[in-house]
This record gives sequence, structure tokens and C-alpha cells, in this order.
Amino acid sequence: MSKIQQLKDRLADVNALHCAVAIMDWDQQTYMPRGGASARAEHVGILSRMAHELFTSDETKRLLENAKGESHEDSDEAAMMRVTQRDLDVNTKIPSDLVEEKSKLAAVAHEEWVKARANNDFKGFAPYLERMFEISRQEAEFLGYKNHIYDALLDLYEEGATADDAKRMFTALKGPNVALVRDIQNNGRKIDDSALYGEWDVPTQKAYTEMLVKAIGFDMNRGRQDVAPHPFCTGWSVGDIRLTTRYKPYIGSAIFGSLHEAGHGMYEQGTPQSWDLTPLAGGVSLGIHESQSRTWENIVGRSRAFWSRFLPDLQRSFPALGFFDLETWYRAINKVEPSFIRVEADEVTYNLHVLVRFELECDILENKLAIKDLPEAWNAKYAEYLGITPKNDAEGCLQDVHWSQGSIGYFPTYSMGNLLSYQIWNALRKDLGETDLLIEKGEFQPILQWLQEKIYSQGRKYKPKDLVMRVTGKPMGAEDYLAGLDKKYREIYGI
Amino acid sequence: MSKIQQLKDRLADVNALHCAVAIMDWDQQTYMPRGGASARAEHVGILSRMAHELFTSDETKRLLENAKGESHEDSDEAAMMRVTQRDLDVNTKIPSDLVEEKSKLAAVAHEEWVKARANNDFKGFAPYLERMFEISRQEAEFLGYKNHIYDALLDLYEEGATADDAKRMFTALKGPNVALVRDIQNNGRKIDDSALYGEWDVPTQKAYTEMLVKAIGFDMNRGRQDVAPHPFCTGWSVGDIRLTTRYKPYIGSAIFGSLHEAGHGMYEQGTPQSWDLTPLAGGVSLGIHESQSRTWENIVGRSRAFWSRFLPDLQRSFPALGFFDLETWYRAINKVEPSFIRVEADEVTYNLHVLVRFELECDILENKLAIKDLPEAWNAKYAEYLGITPKNDAEGCLQDVHWSQGSIGYFPTYSMGNLLSYQIWNALRKDLGETDLLIEKGEFQPILQWLQEKIYSQGRKYKPKDLVMRVTGKPMGAEDYLAGLDKKYREIYGI
Repeated sequence: MSKIQQLKDRLADVNALHCAVAIMDWDQQTYMPRGGASARAEHVGILSRMAHELFTSDETKRLLENAKGESHEDSDEAAMMRVTQRDLDVNTKIPSDLVEEKSKLAAVAHEEWVKARANNDFKGFAPYLERMFEISRQEAEFLGYKNHIYDALLDLYEEGATADDAKRMFTALKGPNVALVRDIQNNGRKIDDSALYGEWDVPTQKAYTEMLVKAIGFDMNRGRQDVAPHPFCTGWSVGDIRLTTRYKPYIGSAIFGSLHEAGHGMYEQGTPQSWDLTPLAGGVSLGIHESQSRTWENIVGRSRAFWSRFLPDLQRSFPALGFFDLETWYRAINKVEPSFIRVEADEVTYNLHVLVRFELECDILENKLAIKDLPEAWNAKYAEYLGITPKNDAEGCLQDVHWSQGSIGYFPTYSMGNLLSYQIWNALRKDLGETDLLIEKGEFQPILQWLQEKIYSQGRKYKPKDLVMRVTGKPMGAEDYLAGLDKKYREIYGI
Repeated sequence: MSKIQQLKDRLADVNALHCAVAIMDWDQQTYMPRGGASARAEHVGILSRMAHELFTSDETKRLLENAKGESHEDSDEAAMMRVTQRDLDVNTKIPSDLVEEKSKLAAVAHEEWVKARANNDFKGFAPYLERMFEISRQEAEFLGYKNHIYDALLDLYEEGATADDAKRMFTALKGPNVALVRDIQNNGRKIDDSALYGEWDVPTQKAYTEMLVKAIGFDMNRGRQDVAPHPFCTGWSVGDIRLTTRYKPYIGSAIFGSLHEAGHGMYEQGTPQSWDLTPLAGGVSLGIHESQSRTWENIVGRSRAFWSRFLPDLQRSFPALGFFDLETWYRAINKVEPSFIRVEADEVTYNLHVLVRFELECDILENKLAIKDLPEAWNAKYAEYLGITPKNDAEGCLQDVHWSQGSIGYFPTYSMGNLLSYQIWNALRKDLGETDLLIEKGEFQPILQWLQEKIYSQGRKYKPKDLVMRVTGKPMGAEDYLAGLDKKYREIYGI
């Protein structure tokens, strides 16, 4: 057996353990009965430890070193080994007792966060949050960084990205985004989207959203859509990618949530079959992944062209929406309004939510901000950037689940996804011409094929920044995004 | 850490791998998209191998030997070590390359069986079946046996049971069962159950069967019911037991299939919390497991008392059944009619299907019957025992999936389950008195509690034969079962 094959076999074993954890996680969020929680935590803990031990073992390192001699530069094998080396470096640097402590704390802190948000009790949650940030600081020190402690954490989610990249991005975004929001609020039309809230039949929503995700190209023979409280996309093979959605009084939750997750899902379904179950499979970074979910949710899904095709179907399914014409519907689903909830924010205010979190994370990690002072700092930033002030901490700094789970340092990738979605779309339009004509006819295949060829089929072969250069011819920047937003929303609001 | 704790930790790791395989299997049979099959096979294969390697490793054996000194006779720990030793013996004796060959052959043979049955092509399937029996012969030789090659295989599913036990059982059953079937056919009433076939609304069936399984005591907070082509029960913790059912033109498929699986499920839910995820958890043998599914399906679920309580609900849910009175309904769901399909056979003819398979298995394993002659032998036995002859092999020896999957040697446990269901029920009635009164009122709790205390809470602590003695005061026999059947069916058929 070749040395590369020996390495591949080893990585396949690690992959099987990770996939077991992934399916257990999917099950927990979709179908698991309440009584299954404690055993599930136990099983996930054991299998995660096994995966970590097997992957970071001396034997894996030896197999990797042996295999390196056999691969040719620029080959897929070489890319696989580069990716494996990176994963190995990261996983080896963080000691397993810290991994274990974090995983246990996350389980407890998540429960405490749920309670704290329900009871508007930040003080009760503060000690867990304090410890979680302390663990992140330690992780960052183990991982190492050149300039900013944040670099070490962000790099986990977006290889090569730094706090300076994020700061530059937000500096470019902040002024124009805040200005656009103010213009809309002060000088723009009033848009009424109240008709989008109601009691919508769940089986009809299910049928409709499944029709939509299939229409844009998500392959239901190699995936499915279920219901989860917090929508996500996961998978364990190119032939089995799972979307989740949710059905809420706002009908946009199901529609745009489904399109969003299908964007993630089509990226995952685009892995070449020969890379399936290997380290090259799947998305290359959170930012580029998010660019694809935002593309299908916003650029395609919130366009006039899309609803010129799909509004009649929608109105047949939901007669209560029958009175909308294309223009009023288009405006209603693009209503801009500062709110406290990031996940339901419109395209324009979205980055401001992310900015608040990024700045606070930096301040806490640098010990410039104490956890006890977080609520005040949070509220001040909401007042400054969004012009609104949370009435309590449940609506304020207890909003997001991420910190309780130890996900610290990845909020910027949401905004990177927004920027990249427009930047990549412009590159696509240079090749394909007027995309509106395709979308109006429901012909998504040329669009999907382009993305498939340029991005999805590349898996993790290139580093994120290199992939962006290859696909768009320039590094990530804010100009395509800002221009796109300006054009769209100044027209919608008549300003 | 105590030596017992070290062993427990090791076994918990093995258990986590087995549970990962179990949930992957559940998912494959319920929700997995078609495209997921090949990766699923790969993952299940890898994780099964890991579990086998980890369990049979020298380290596990060392931990077990070390721990033995620390446990007291008759303690739970001692029982756990006995069970572990048995599992270890069995798993160590069969070489892993045979395990691997069998698992691969099973994947291929199952597909070939599906094709062969669809095309009525026994010859196409014969080579796979030939090899599968050969592997079973080899397994049996590795496992060892005193009298009959069949003993080694049956013991895997029913510890301590032998071919002689099975032969004695069938000898006791055959005459009375065949005679009862003939009396019913020749001298009994004609029963019309055609109204049970129709197009039944699936959500209504789902709601109704979930109501039923909850009513008898299956805890939906610690379990759920989904749909699968072939109903089964599985689980990975006392807090997470999964039933499946199916919705067919015969409304009894969903009703009695659900009650059957709930019987398995309540057994699994009855494991003491402190044994959860340990080798003592779950059912002790296939025969005793089956006795519980048959109890709730037949003794409870096909009784007059049960439907005196539930027929009105049923008729509200399915108005097309409204014309039945209790007596005609009771007769319809207990109609006896020889057929070719074991899984849908009535209580009376059921064991004759099993007997056919058992006798043929013995003959093939002993090289008294060649695979090529199997169709003829099968048909001859159906003619002799059931009075009917399959019109082709699809209806004949290609009926059951089991052989293609390498499940050879466990058919007798189905009949053992039938015998034990009546034998245990009679012991229960000695303690609880007239159970019909409880069932009529829908008060299943005393029944469940009795079974819980005597059987479910004992897990794998006692050997199957010992447990039967403890619960019923005598070894397994046919008399309770035959008397029960005789009383019930002679009354139903007026003979």
C-alpha cells in the first residue's frame, strides 16, 4: 500500500468519528427526545476525544511525514497534506485538557445562557462568560499570533485572516452602512411588511420551501430538509447534506432561512466525489461559506427577478398574500429597520450587529472591558450604530448563543460573507451577463455551474485568500458590496 | 481510579462506537437520502471495526482480569463482568477477517436478494446464499459447540439455548398448531376482514398509533416513533429509544406493528438508569425480547378487553370502521389464514413459518440439503405444515431478508418469544388477578410495573434461562402458549 494511501486510511478513520459526532449533533437538534440529552453529551464527548486522540497521535504525524515525499507539488495530494498539516498543528497546539474543559463548560454555559436570557439575568451568566473568554485567551496563547490576540482565534475559522483585516473591513463598512440606515429612516419611504406575519400552515411552508431549494439546485437525492429551532446546514458526505429550517409567524423565516441554508448545502454538495470523506471536502472557510448562503438568500432570493418567477406560486400556496404585486412584495421583503436581533436583521443593518460583537470581543480579549461592564458597553454601541437601545440584557448582550458555546472570534466571518457574496457575484456576472434574465426564467443551472466550477469543486484545495483572488481577481474588499447595497436600497426607498 | 472504573471507562468507549453505528443504522432506515448510502456503509464499516478492535484488544482483556478481583459475587459488577467475558469470548473467537468478509458479503447479498425477489430469480441469489451459509458454518466452528453445529449460532442470540431445545419446542408445537389450523379451516366460521384494507390517512394513523403506544406506557419523552419500510426498535440510552412503524393498506400493519415495537421499546426503557450505557443495559436475549413485543401486540393488543377500550377512539379516527361492533372487530383482527408471509402471519400459523425456516437451516448447515434444492424443500414444507404452496420462489424461499444479511440461527427465538409471552403472562396474572379489567379501563400501569420489576429492570444481569425460572418458576415450555391459543381461537371460530 502506498504511503499516501496509508495516510488516507488513517484520516478516513478520523473522519468516520467526526461524522458520527456530526450526525449525533444533527439528530439532537432535529429529532432527539428530551430524555436523550445526557447520554448524547456522553457519547459526543467520548467520540470527540477519540477523534482528537487518533488525529493528533504520533502515528498520524508519522504517516503524514512519510506521505509527503510521495506527492507532487500542486497536486491534490499535496493540498490534502497541507490542509492536514494545518489541522494537525491547530489540534496539537491546544492541550486536550483545555479542549475537555471547554467542551464541558460549553455544555453548562449553554444551559446557563438559556436560563439567563429567559430571566434577563446577566449576572447569573457572567461567571460562565468570564471563564469562557479566559479559555479563549489561553487557546489563543497556545495557538500563537503575531500582532493581535484576536488573530489566533479568527484564523481558526478563516485561515489567514487577521484582526487588522476585520478592522479594515468594518472601517470601510461602518460609515456608509450607518449613513444608509439614517437616510432610509429619515428620508425614505415607509414600508409596511405586516402582512408577512401570520399563522402559516406548516405543511404548506414545508412543501413551498422544499420546492424553492430544489428549484435553485439543491439536490434532494443527496440531501434533505428538516426542522430545527436554529436553522443550520450539516453533512457527512457529498451524497448526504442536511438542511434545517423553521416555521415562524414571519413567513420570511422559512423562505429566506431555507434559501440561506441551501446556499451552504449546495456548496457542500459540490465537493468532487473523489474528495468525499477526505480533508479536502467541504467549504474552505466560514467567510466563503457564508458568501454562498448570503448569495442565494439575498442576491438571488431577495431580488425582483426571483419573485417575478416565484410570487405567483407563493400566492397560490398562501392566498393571504394574494394582494401583493411584485413591487410591494419586493419592498416588503427588503424592509430596512434597525432591530436587536442579528439573525433576523435586514441586509443593510446586518453588519452593524456584527461590528458590535467584534469590537466587544476585541476589548474583552485585550482586558480593556470587564465582563461586568459588558451590558453597558453593548447598549452604548447599539445606540451609536443602530440608533436603538435594548430595553434589557435579554434583548441586549444575551442575544447570541455563540459566546456561551465558546465560539469567540468568528463573528467577522459573517460580514466577510456579505462582502464576498457581492464581489463573487460581480465576477460571475462578468462571465454570464445579465443574471436577472436567468433568474426570472428560473434557470439557475448556469449560475450554479459557475459557482460549482469556481468555488464548490475546489473544496479546501486553496487557502481562502488565494481562492478569492482566483475567483474574483482581487483581494476581498468592501466596494462591490457597498455599491450593490447602495444601488438596491436607494432605489427601494426612493432616496 | 478503581480497577472496575477503569474497565467501565473502557467499555463506555466501546459502547459509544456501537451507539454511533446504531444511530447511523436508524437514520439509514428512516431519513437518509438515497445518495448517502455508500458513505454510510463506509462509516459504519470503519466504526464497527474500531469497536471490534477496541473491545477485543489485549488492554480490554487486561482491564477485565484486573477488575474481577474487586467485585463481589452476585453483585451487579460481577454480572457486568460475566456478560463482558461472554461478549469478549464470542468476539475474540471469530477472526476479524471473517467478520469483515461477512459484513461485506451481507452488503452485496442484500442487494442481490432484493433483485432476486423482484425478478423471482433464485438461481441468481443462490451463490451468495451458499457463501453466507458457508461463513455461518465457519463461525460456528470457531465458536465451538458440543452437540449440534446449530447450537453455536443459536447461542449468539439466545445464550444457553440449543438446537435440541428448539427441536423439543417445535415438536411440542407442530402437532397442536397444525391441528388447530386444520380445524379452523375445515370446521370454523368464515371471518371477513376485508374492511381492514383501504387507503388510510397517514397523519391519522400516526396520531392514533402514537396515542396507543403512549397509552400502554411507552414514554415519548424518552423515545419517539418514525416510519421505516421494515419496522424495528433501536436505541442508544434508556432515555432515547426509537420505534418505527409503517402505514399500509392493511390498517393492522400500523396498529399491531406499533404495539409490537413498543413492547420492545418499553423493555429497553426499563433498564435501570445506573446501568445505562453499560453492558448490563437492554434485553437479555432475542427470545425474551420477543416475548415482550408479542405480549403487547397479541395478548394485550389483540384482546377483546383492549378493543372494548380503544375501538370507539379508532372509529372516531377512521369512520370507515364505524360499522364494526366489538365482536366482529375482535374476530377480524384475529383472523387465522395460512399465508406465505411470516411477518404478517396470524398468531396461530406464525410458528409454522418459523419451523420451516429452522428445519431448513439445520439441514443446510448439516449439508443434508444443497442450496440448489432449497426451493423445492421450502415448498414441500409449506404444503405439509400450512397446506399451501408458493406459486414461485419470490413467494417462497426468497421471502425473508434474514439469510441475505447473515442472520442464520435465530429464527427459533421468534417462537420462543411466543411461548414465553403466554408463560410470563400467566405468571403475571397469578400476581395481578384478572388483567382484562385493567385493560378494559386502560390501566396498563400495574401490568407494566410488574414486567418492569421482574424483567425490564433486570437487564442482562441473569442468563435467559435463569431469568425465565425466576419470573415464571419453571423452564420455558409450550403448555401455557398452546392452552392460551386453543382457548382463544376455538372460541373465536366456534369449534
